[in-house]
Amino acid sequence: MFAPGDLTEDGFLGGRLRISQPRAGYRAAMDPVLLAAACAARAGESVLELGCGAGVASLCLGHRTAGLSLTGLELQPAYAALARENAARNGVPFEVIEGDLAQMAPELRARSFDHVIANPPYFGATDGTPAADPGRERAQREATPIAAWLDAGLKRLRPEGWITLIQQADRLGDLLTGLQGRAGAITVLPIAPRAGRPARRVIVTARKGAKTPLKLLAPLILHAAPEHSRDAEDLTEIARAILRDAQELPIDR
Amino acid sequence: MFAPGDLTEDGFLGGRLRISQPRAGYRAAMDPVLLAAACAARAGESVLELGCGAGVASLCLGHRTAGLSLTGLELQPAYAALARENAARNGVPFEVIEGDLAQMAPELRARSFDHVIANPPYFGATDGTPAADPGRERAQREATPIAAWLDAGLKRLRPEGWITLIQQADRLGDLLTGLQGRAGAITVLPIAPRAGRPARRVIVTARKGAKTPLKLLAPLILHAAPEHSRDAEDLTEIARAILRDAQELPIDR
Repeated sequence: MFAPGDLTEDGFLGGRLRISQPRAGYRAAMDPVLLAAACAARAGESVLELGCGAGVASLCLGHRTAGLSLTGLELQPAYAALARENAARNGVPFEVIEGDLAQMAPELRARSFDHVIANPPYFGATDGTPAADPGRERAQREATPIAAWLDAGLKRLRPEGWITLIQQADRLGDLLTGLQGRAGAITVLPIAPRAGRPARRVIVTARKGAKTPLKLLAPLILHAAPEHSRDAEDLTEIARAILRDAQELPIDR
Repeated sequence: MFAPGDLTEDGFLGGRLRISQPRAGYRAAMDPVLLAAACAARAGESVLELGCGAGVASLCLGHRTAGLSLTGLELQPAYAALARENAARNGVPFEVIEGDLAQMAPELRARSFDHVIANPPYFGATDGTPAADPGRERAQREATPIAAWLDAGLKRLRPEGWITLIQQADRLGDLLTGLQGRAGAITVLPIAPRAGRPARRVIVTARKGAKTPLKLLAPLILHAAPEHSRDAEDLTEIARAILRDAQELPIDR
């Protein structure tokens, strides 16, 4: 478990959520907020987050939409405990189960969900330099290939249920290959730092069992200034609505 | 073969190319011009076009860059003959071979190319309504799955050679799945009619044997007006440069 001195408390959604995160470990930034914004869960529906970490994505979702049944699966016990504390602190009901998505926990095997969301690790098993912090390393580097995340997610979805993922844009081929023939109504939303730039992230949504063709959407642009500026508040109107005002990201599915 | 009354002569690249096309058959529009613009072939290099039809893409490329060795493969003899006539009329050296890419012609089997380009049929074997014209139907509907186009293209490439394809955007999953593990340095260029709209087409380029990560580029926007207008000349500056002024499409590979 983390000692109090190992943690920082950070604001998300314009300070509406207070989240404890390990100072040296995996620290959430924009990505889980964007992931939550892209999930169109409605009151009464169930959502499973694979690899929920400290719980940012699920808690953003629970903050935006009351009446959801939120469940998180997390491999690292210290992060699972932190997610439970963060849920309690923010008054969002959130069930957190410890376990490995590649060997689905028995209490989840019999359940199915209306939505599955995930922000899988961005680095392949052999890419780059390992992080010094072991928890951060575990959260960032895939021990489990992305195909296994998709497999676990699709298995836990009810028929016609939706899966929503955020990933580094260069993993788009892995995502679409893993979904090929198993889910339809795929939407690909590129997320670019500025207009005219390559996407850094991609949000992919898909519907289990659907046959509708893929849509490649116009990019979501995060910053309005054409170049990097010292003014951190150059967010575009849509980015500000999502990141500060807790709004849903409208996706033309 | 087509009778003269079955043909129309159309201008491409702002009238720089005069191309005969069957009045009732498959008629090229923007797509082969965009395909040619996305291929970075340089003088002295060889290019193979799979399914060249009346030859528009290869002839655009030959018009832009002198000193290329251009070869086309076309299944339908009447289109192959037309491609040869179009090449002669426009003074572009272009070797056209009749044959099926799924059973590679013996004279191509021993050859490899610096570039392969293709504009495969957009409709799956069972999509939509058949075209009344059999030649158009053959050009638009895949008898050969897209994986076979990629397979044939990658086999004909030299190591480190480039493949460039244009397709309907909803086939992006098929394209990336077919390239997965076989080519790298993939770039995905969405082509959207207007800013903020989903892409209708996608240009995908990849390098045989490369390991560089995929790039999801900012979309190429064709029309400047926010809505469809009667003014056909509302092309964006970049679209005009490509479609009217025969310029190369700069792709950040």
